Amino acid sequence: MTERNVLRLAIPNGNLQQATVDLFCKAGYNMVVRERSYFPSVDDDDVECMLIRPQEQPRYVQDGIIDAGITGYDWIKETGSNVIEVAEMTYSKVSRRPTRWVFVVPDDSPIRTIKDLEGKRIATELTNLTRDYLEKNGVQALVEYSFGATEVKAGLLADAIVEATETGTSLRVNNLRILDTLIESTPRLIASPQAWGDPWKRQKIGDIALMLNAVMAAEGKVWLSMNCLKEDLDTVVENLPALNTPTVNSLTDPAWCEVTTIVDEDVMRVIVPRLKKAGANGIVEYPLNKIIE
Amino acid sequence: MTERNVLRLAIPNGNLQQATVDLFCKAGYNMVVRERSYFPSVDDDDVECMLIRPQEQPRYVQDGIIDAGITGYDWIKETGSNVIEVAEMTYSKVSRRPTRWVFVVPDDSPIRTIKDLEGKRIATELTNLTRDYLEKNGVQALVEYSFGATEVKAGLLADAIVEATETGTSLRVNNLRILDTLIESTPRLIASPQAWGDPWKRQKIGDIALMLNAVMAAEGKVWLSMNCLKEDLDTVVENLPALNTPTVNSLTDPAWCEVTTIVDEDVMRVIVPRLKKAGANGIVEYPLNKIIE
Amino acid sequence: MTERNVLRLAIPNGNLQQATVDLFCKAGYNMVVRERSYFPSVDDDDVECMLIRPQEQPRYVQDGIIDAGITGYDWIKETGSNVIEVAEMTYSKVSRRPTRWVFVVPDDSPIRTIKDLEGKRIATELTNLTRDYLEKNGVQALVEYSFGATEVKAGLLADAIVEATETGTSLRVNNLRILDTLIESTPRLIASPQAWGDPWKRQKIGDIALMLNAVMAAEGKVWLSMNCLKEDLDTVVENLPALNTPTVNSLTDPAWCEVTTIVDEDVMRVIVPRLKKAGANGIVEYPLNKIIE
Amino acid sequence: MTERNVLRLAIPNGNLQQATVDLFCKAGYNMVVRERSYFPSVDDDDVECMLIRPQEQPRYVQDGIIDAGITGYDWIKETGSNVIEVAEMTYSKVSRRPTRWVFVVPDDSPIRTIKDLEGKRIATELTNLTRDYLEKNGVQALVEYSFGATEVKAGLLADAIVEATETGTSLRVNNLRILDTLIESTPRLIASPQAWGDPWKRQKIGDIALMLNAVMAAEGKVWLSMNCLKEDLDTVVENLPALNTPTVNSLTDPAWCEVTTIVDEDVMRVIVPRLKKAGANGIVEYPLNKIIE
Amino acid sequence: MTERNVLRLAIPNGNLQQATVDLFCKAGYNMVVRERSYFPSVDDDDVECMLIRPQEQPRYVQDGIIDAGITGYDWIKETGSNVIEVAEMTYSKVSRRPTRWVFVVPDDSPIRTIKDLEGKRIATELTNLTRDYLEKNGVQALVEYSFGATEVKAGLLADAIVEATETGTSLRVNNLRILDTLIESTPRLIASPQAWGDPWKRQKIGDIALMLNAVMAAEGKVWLSMNCLKEDLDTVVENLPALNTPTVNSLTDPAWCEVTTIVDEDVMRVIVPRLKKAGANGIVEYPLNKIIE
Amino acid sequence: MTERNVLRLAIPNGNLQQATVDLFCKAGYNMVVRERSYFPSVDDDDVECMLIRPQEQPRYVQDGIIDAGITGYDWIKETGSNVIEVAEMTYSKVSRRPTRWVFVVPDDSPIRTIKDLEGKRIATELTNLTRDYLEKNGVQALVEYSFGATEVKAGLLADAIVEATETGTSLRVNNLRILDTLIESTPRLIASPQAWGDPWKRQKIGDIALMLNAVMAAEGKVWLSMNCLKEDLDTVVENLPALNTPTVNSLTDPAWCEVTTIVDEDVMRVIVPRLKKAGANGIVEYPLNKIIE
Repeated sequence: MTERNVLRLAIPNGNLQQATVDLFCKAGYNMVVRERSYFPSVDDDDVECMLIRPQEQPRYVQDGIIDAGITGYDWIKETGSNVIEVAEMTYSKVSRRPTRWVFVVPDDSPIRTIKDLEGKRIATELTNLTRDYLEKNGVQALVEYSFGATEVKAGLLADAIVEATETGTSLRVNNLRILDTLIESTPRLIASPQAWGDPWKRQKIGDIALMLNAVMAAEGKVWLSMNCLKEDLDTVVENLPALNTPTVNSLTDPAWCEVTTIVDEDVMRVIVPRLKKAGANGIVEYPLNKIIE
Repeated sequence: MTERNVLRLAIPNGNLQQATVDLFCKAGYNMVVRERSYFPSVDDDDVECMLIRPQEQPRYVQDGIIDAGITGYDWIKETGSNVIEVAEMTYSKVSRRPTRWVFVVPDDSPIRTIKDLEGKRIATELTNLTRDYLEKNGVQALVEYSFGATEVKAGLLADAIVEATETGTSLRVNNLRILDTLIESTPRLIASPQAWGDPWKRQKIGDIALMLNAVMAAEGKVWLSMNCLKEDLDTVVENLPALNTPTVNSLTDPAWCEVTTIVDEDVMRVIVPRLKKAGANGIVEYPLNKIIE
Repeated sequence: MTERNVLRLAIPNGNLQQATVDLFCKAGYNMVVRERSYFPSVDDDDVECMLIRPQEQPRYVQDGIIDAGITGYDWIKETGSNVIEVAEMTYSKVSRRPTRWVFVVPDDSPIRTIKDLEGKRIATELTNLTRDYLEKNGVQALVEYSFGATEVKAGLLADAIVEATETGTSLRVNNLRILDTLIESTPRLIASPQAWGDPWKRQKIGDIALMLNAVMAAEGKVWLSMNCLKEDLDTVVENLPALNTPTVNSLTDPAWCEVTTIVDEDVMRVIVPRLKKAGANGIVEYPLNKIIE
Repeated sequence: MTERNVLRLAIPNGNLQQATVDLFCKAGYNMVVRERSYFPSVDDDDVECMLIRPQEQPRYVQDGIIDAGITGYDWIKETGSNVIEVAEMTYSKVSRRPTRWVFVVPDDSPIRTIKDLEGKRIATELTNLTRDYLEKNGVQALVEYSFGATEVKAGLLADAIVEATETGTSLRVNNLRILDTLIESTPRLIASPQAWGDPWKRQKIGDIALMLNAVMAAEGKVWLSMNCLKEDLDTVVENLPALNTPTVNSLTDPAWCEVTTIVDEDVMRVIVPRLKKAGANGIVEYPLNKIIE
Repeated sequence: MTERNVLRLAIPNGNLQQATVDLFCKAGYNMVVRERSYFPSVDDDDVECMLIRPQEQPRYVQDGIIDAGITGYDWIKETGSNVIEVAEMTYSKVSRRPTRWVFVVPDDSPIRTIKDLEGKRIATELTNLTRDYLEKNGVQALVEYSFGATEVKAGLLADAIVEATETGTSLRVNNLRILDTLIESTPRLIASPQAWGDPWKRQKIGDIALMLNAVMAAEGKVWLSMNCLKEDLDTVVENLPALNTPTVNSLTDPAWCEVTTIVDEDVMRVIVPRLKKAGANGIVEYPLNKIIE
Repeated sequence: MTERNVLRLAIPNGNLQQATVDLFCKAGYNMVVRERSYFPSVDDDDVECMLIRPQEQPRYVQDGIIDAGITGYDWIKETGSNVIEVAEMTYSKVSRRPTRWVFVVPDDSPIRTIKDLEGKRIATELTNLTRDYLEKNGVQALVEYSFGATEVKAGLLADAIVEATETGTSLRVNNLRILDTLIESTPRLIASPQAWGDPWKRQKIGDIALMLNAVMAAEGKVWLSMNCLKEDLDTVVENLPALNTPTVNSLTDPAWCEVTTIVDEDVMRVIVPRLKKAGANGIVEYPLNKIIE
């Protein structure tokens, strides 16, 4: 990677890779990951990308080997790295829920509280955060690094584990019980202190953040248009979410008007029956790509 | 499944499963079918879904074990079930054609009419409807249940078969000849009489029908916008489908106006050449998601 | 294929097949290629499609066995066929770059110029064009037909090759050096002279070209809408691409106006930060399907 | 299918298909099932094969439409068909365990015995056998046909089910409890009474049974050879399974002899350590294909 | 590829590739084709392999660019190449049947004999052999090269085709009729005249041929052992194939003897029933890998 | 896992998993890994298996949480664990080569010797062994843990890496240069000191080792049989590998004898041409499964 006027950007491989690449593409960056290549191409000559694991990004970004990246809040804290958090990434609706790292034991374990972990064996990928938390709680235990498949270890190879979960479903299915929460985490766009101090790089990172945010703001939102009698206008508007003032236009027939607004796709199934009852007709929903407030 | 304030909804597995799930998702219900699970999740706590075969739905809906479902008209009739037909489902353009169940014999069979089936062996999945039809026609024959691959049986394991077809292509390729039509069928949203009598459940089923209809109405439709000289306006409008009155807006240049309307995507390739000839320019087509008339 | 009022259309199989079918679908022709079938179905009874290799299309179109097709400029020239070129196809952004056929030798080959090919062995799929080119340059060489995997032959089975490339990346990775360019090529919609002389067929081919062009014009374009204070209008408009005059509408609040226009999706990431700085807000980007200027 | 000197043989599709085809191939019949074809080819001009579901075979074999087939004992009994059972098929070691059809209820169901099924709803594919069994036990219940996914119905769509299981694992994982066994079943080679009465067909079916049995007898068996001092011979032979008398050969060195025998591959890991201790050396194990006692 | 003491060997890609690689592996050459590589690795430092299409091999082998290869007799003749045919390859039982190139017309074509092809358009991959054959028959026709999917062209893009077939099944399914046979072909191990004149290379090619032949000779053969009473020996031996004299050994019990021999796996199903009837018992079949007569 | 009379055995997941399971199956243990399960089933009630990463096995085996496992020598040393090495595993021919962990730098790096690593950043999975080695060489460097894709880091994210390689091919392709070797490693069957001290467990582990060794000894070996004139016997035997004395048997024809022996499959292509020349004929090669010397 060359030094001048190039932004070195880390893309997370693993779970977040495809979602991240899709987000950049929607934001107008034509990013392509060729099979077996660790260097995604992007149609911006100012940016050089590299796939780097979320666990490793904070260290390389802190030391300025990489200018910016997308990793989890969990790994920023576990590595204790000194990086700038530029933006929180919510990605698509499906993965919008934060990751929760929890202390977990088998359903039938006698361990009931953090205190009961005294002298026990705990397997986890977050050994530093786990040790800190136990220390704060005055508990001494053997915390050892787990290279994966941590869930399977609970009760067999370790007394307890600290593992990531979104909904807890997988834990329940495996007859595991949550003891306590260690940390909640979402993906972050991070920058190295050196890059943040360089005006050109800071501007570049800011522009990327602006475009990514524009896509995330539009996710799950739609543009709604409908007609109603002017006498029904107030009732119709009352049934629209309060967030944005809807636009009202006159129609050729002076008794009627057109109402348009942007709403969450989520609420459509709730408000459409109400809008119809309130007198709206010709309700049409359109897709949209980006919103910059 | 709990009893109160929950709608038990059957999703058809097999051919219609993916199309049904896609339809619900477009309608704003985030429905996910996890691998090996028979219980699709949906982000509406009032609804509990279960994958149930179209053949089995009418029975369970009639008896109120399930509140509503999506199955074919053919299976409603074959099972002779007493259910409420709430809406006809047209799904996407591709599968919009109804399924036709036909009496089929090999091309070179001496059987020419229904009467010739007297004393013959007939394989089909619709044994009840087939027996009724033969009886009405005064024909006696051995009608036996076929567990699948019915087409292959014609001429080898049975003298005739009664089988579903959409275009008849598959039959022609297999050198089979259609004798007669037993029944035509499309998917239906059905409700149990008990659920239909419960105001909360009836409202819930009605809302679902409204949203599914909104998506189906928008399928294959687009929003069209174009500019033309005011003097060409009448000719331009004449070339638009008569269904909806187009909206006409003034432009800054008083000689010009903007015309917008919703049309079937299907007719675009027919009307665009005509519109251009009539004086329209700057014709732009936009996608849309839902229409509620 | 029947003779009257039917347009026989060749769809290229191989690399271009999926992109061509997608293009027709977006243009409003519901085209489906069934597995193992060479006859794509299309929902226009006036059109009969057949998958034919780009190499073979010019010959069959020239002789009027096929009325129209989509093939490359390279194969039109290689076969020396007499066909009408109706339109250039740019397809999607990804493959918009023309194909370049180049003379290629191994990096460490002593061959430096076309002249050095005297007496050498050259493998290529374009034997006619290669022979013509060498003749024009006064070079005599053994040009032999390569059935595929031509790149691998350079330096092992042949002294040089003539091969298609888009970006040259694959050549560089394989340690090959470009000597010269033989021809550049893009896909073309072609018609047979006989069909072009038949008014009905010519009209039909023209309509298809119009709709395909409408889709290609809309690829990579988006519809942009934003609000700004009237006093900022000039600055905002200055930051929009000069191509189209944006539409400016009044809003209820007389101090504000709404600006809408169509722009390349490519420039969004450049202009959005500028537009925000210039005073625009409520910037929303919408997708669009077709543009007919 | 022609009438004279041809054996019409049904091959089961579904679970048993691949194992059956493999068994025939090992037995020396080159059987190939082409994709999407229901007619396996076999390199014996006297045999014509057709894929037919196990459920449907007994009916067609009883009526002489098919001469012989391979289906389960369960379906022979369910259909009450009059067929000749020529041989029991054990296939490979993996599926050697018989299928058991069991009455099943949810773990937490109040139903404890067959008697408790009085007045309940039971879903199963074996409706006839289930009704017979209940009648014998003096129980009246609603037995309805299940088109598949029967396990999922227990407790939700039916009070109990009758379902096939091999090890019961899948039932336990789904929190289901076995109430009683309806029938145990293994695959059978069956013949129609008509074919069995035809000497040519009977001979043909007998030859097939002989070769299939030869392969099944050899499955999981190996040929073992070892050397030992003559003085250790008795101890070595004592450690060999008693089934077959081992062959003892002299070696050039008169103090030594060679012992060979056929043993179950299963017992190798048990007897090899003992044989070594008993003085055997140069123990070599060879594969074998067929055994005809 | 280096020049000294290295045998340059072409492996056919396409249909024959996997079967060829498997054959070499069974013959004791550990050959591996890595994905996307045209250079199979082999654990013999004297051999360098390259994947080359059967159509192109004869030309490169004739000119000594490649020392030896495996291609079809059809392509040797089509290219009129001067190469040494070292051995015929029969591969496994499945593909043992020779390829037949046939003149084919649609079932309903008026063309009945080769003479009827006068003035017609013929599509084929074997243009040279086809032209020669027509000339010998005094027929003038337009023979044009087909790049693939030749079967589909018959009757649509060409009046007749010349196409390869093994069993003719695919032709019949496509409603095509065979007019005449152009040539029959099997794979051949070929050598260049230059390599054949080099003692080291000739020896190397000869060794490879020996080992490949050893595997092909063993394909579909098995080793058979059985016991019988000495008085039944003659009858038992009569029922064994006459090819090889069986080995007869004495057993401890002087009334009995052991008979062993090698037979075609194909005949097992015929002779086993006879051997049993003749008094043989303890019949065991063993696999074998290679036979060198 | 229960405590008494059960051997807890770790099976390595990742690269070695499939080869390990295959090896156990060949050794007579019917081991099956069900999808998504970490607990391979095995048909020996005395053994309970669990998939555990090679990196984690030494720790759990040392502490007696697991009785025995299969892991690499590299991980035993990296973790500094106190375990019993029962046997070296060579698996199949393909992976027989040991893994070599090497210090690697980019081709164009100025780093030439271990000494040049002073003050540099080194990424590796073997941080402990790397630090020890550097210390012994008097070099101070920043050694950091690499979570994977280590090769890509060389020159970009680290000055040097320590990575595993078998043939070095992958390194050369990536333009990397080997500086030095850290450690060579092969898989090992290991036991915990506690289990080794328990006679029942030690016996069980010993039996498993015996059977695995029997399979490994037979890999790549074949049984060879041939006939020759007694006068050629010496020459024939001279051409057989010296390892085992071949067995010579008389034949009915007193001039001939039969020679049998076990040889490496590898040498077959070398010795067969020689044996033929020496007068051997009727050479037949048979497969074998296990050898216990």
